[in-house]
Amino acid sequence: MPDHAVTFRLISKDGDARRGELSTPHGTVQTPTFMPVGTLGTVKGVDIERLAETQAEMVLGNTYHLALRPGEKVVSKLGGLHEMSGWQGPMLTDSGGFQVFSLAKVRDIDEEGVRFKSHIDGSRIELTPERSVEIQEHLGADVAMVLDEVVSLPSTRDNVESAMHRSLRWAERCQNAASRSDQSLFGIVQGGLDEELRRESAEGLVSLDFAGYAIGGLSVGEPAEDMYRTISATAPYLPTDRPRYLMGVGTPNDLLEAVSRGVDMFDCVMPTRNGRNALAFTDEGPLRLRNAKHAEDTRPLQEGCPCLACRRHSRGYIRHLFQAKEMLGPMLVSLCNLTYYQRLMQGIRDSIEQGNFEEFKAEKQAGWAKG
Amino acid sequence: MPDHAVTFRLISKDGDARRGELSTPHGTVQTPTFMPVGTLGTVKGVDIERLAETQAEMVLGNTYHLALRPGEKVVSKLGGLHEMSGWQGPMLTDSGGFQVFSLAKVRDIDEEGVRFKSHIDGSRIELTPERSVEIQEHLGADVAMVLDEVVSLPSTRDNVESAMHRSLRWAERCQNAASRSDQSLFGIVQGGLDEELRRESAEGLVSLDFAGYAIGGLSVGEPAEDMYRTISATAPYLPTDRPRYLMGVGTPNDLLEAVSRGVDMFDCVMPTRNGRNALAFTDEGPLRLRNAKHAEDTRPLQEGCPCLACRRHSRGYIRHLFQAKEMLGPMLVSLCNLTYYQRLMQGIRDSIEQGNFEEFKAEKQAGWAKG
Repeated sequence: MPDHAVTFRLISKDGDARRGELSTPHGTVQTPTFMPVGTLGTVKGVDIERLAETQAEMVLGNTYHLALRPGEKVVSKLGGLHEMSGWQGPMLTDSGGFQVFSLAKVRDIDEEGVRFKSHIDGSRIELTPERSVEIQEHLGADVAMVLDEVVSLPSTRDNVESAMHRSLRWAERCQNAASRSDQSLFGIVQGGLDEELRRESAEGLVSLDFAGYAIGGLSVGEPAEDMYRTISATAPYLPTDRPRYLMGVGTPNDLLEAVSRGVDMFDCVMPTRNGRNALAFTDEGPLRLRNAKHAEDTRPLQEGCPCLACRRHSRGYIRHLFQAKEMLGPMLVSLCNLTYYQRLMQGIRDSIEQGNFEEFKAEKQAGWAKG
Repeated sequence: MPDHAVTFRLISKDGDARRGELSTPHGTVQTPTFMPVGTLGTVKGVDIERLAETQAEMVLGNTYHLALRPGEKVVSKLGGLHEMSGWQGPMLTDSGGFQVFSLAKVRDIDEEGVRFKSHIDGSRIELTPERSVEIQEHLGADVAMVLDEVVSLPSTRDNVESAMHRSLRWAERCQNAASRSDQSLFGIVQGGLDEELRRESAEGLVSLDFAGYAIGGLSVGEPAEDMYRTISATAPYLPTDRPRYLMGVGTPNDLLEAVSRGVDMFDCVMPTRNGRNALAFTDEGPLRLRNAKHAEDTRPLQEGCPCLACRRHSRGYIRHLFQAKEMLGPMLVSLCNLTYYQRLMQGIRDSIEQGNFEEFKAEKQAGWAKG
């Protein structure tokens, strides 16, 4: 087994919260980190230079979506996901598993893989561990994810257990299929909300020696406390010298709670999806810009925020943009929310370094509760 | 009559093409100039800093649209159109006349003004010359336009003539109603395609002494040759020390032809509307990005273009964005088209100064014809 292309260095701890650094072929990433989601090779409504202004360091692309449009071979002909999208920093692609289970129609799953119909044109597609790796190698992100079998919760323990075991076998197949020396594979811990299954999954993956470990199958509708408990039950079984990535999470509060339980990496569509829906995250909680009370408000979305929306525009103007269905509304609030998330992560990193993460967390939570 | 807030200085001529400078309370504008259209206080899909990067100097806002949403009083409470939109350079608002005639339902027009139903919510609204000026003074652009009666062509000479005469009377009422010392009013020459009526309209307006003169009622479906002929028949009756503004025009070729006939200012939605529809203007003619032949093309939209789209992205990627219905597609091509128009205007200004405007025009036209 060659050295991993992507490595992690733990810099300091504050309680279970970890301050670290991820090294990738396209640069280093300070952790804890939040990755904006660039589903189809673009973070929706945010151009590549504005995205860099948010201080994002690593961007996620969705294998399922890119394999359907424009197709991984086109991405490859356009130079790979970095070159095509213009993002020259670190990138990660998921395996496509989650989208197959949430978006595709008529799924037929067995030990070999999963066959489904495209949600775009209904065409029949097969995704196996080997095929997922092949697609991700064409895309060429720094981090690729193993294909896992995702179970929607609630489910029976038998279902969760057998999917977890199958995911372990698929993880090994992904590892055997991987051939790019400039790309590392992360394993994905499964096991639903069952602490024993989570431990078994983590130990099984760790014995395979992945460059990093994701906690998958969470934030799928379960209560937040269940998610936090499951993270707490999983993290102790992951090696300290590898990054821990909580997939698809979450709210600003989720990030704080997960960091306090030892998570290093996140991705989520919340800042952009909510931005497109006129909801701005602020230190006083969410701002719903369609509310008429903002119509003549000359204040920025968030006092002190360095983003274009806050530097140049008022709440009243941005509300007007949404009322008038102008593209600039979604563009500006997406940008502001991504900036909010990155500033939150910067505050998290600083407070871990300074040994006052819990105070930082309590202060943020108090502000949100006031709103 | 006080001195005009907006003044024009003719710097040089090349044939009938004019190189000049417009001075406004919010800065100077080099002419010939093209104004991007910010209908509702935003140029669609382009943020205010990217807009400045295109080298645009003056932006247009639409009185009709802004009066309906968010309403001119809200604009005023948000600091006026400059402060609200974030555009600190020169601005111009139209009078609302053209939109009333093209968008509003159930129009009832008489000497007093026009009553219509909002195209948004069907509410009844009255627009008179005095009311148009009042709204535009709330908006606070550097240049306001007189309310005119727009006749759709073809029409009878009697209709065109009586609308032209009424427009002259309305122009005088606008002038009498105007009270802001930091805003100048431009008259609008009407008269359809009738050269005699155009002369009468121009002379009538000039006797009222406006800060500038627009040529209105063109680019409404008539053949391009009729438009060019009408411009040629109007310009000689306009004073050389005032700017000439051809409203709602046009294609890159229209700009060249109108400049060669003495026009100084333009506005048009073409760069942004076409940009949203995946059509990019280039020196080799329009590029239709939905065409499959661009799928794997790694070239930029326009070689040598300094815009973000061309600096960072390929034709193949931008095509993918349109196929996937990503907002970034319209954002990038709108930006590229606005940059194309501004670079064309820069080339026009340079060539007039250098005395080789006709060569420049012929060279551009030859390039477009090849595409």
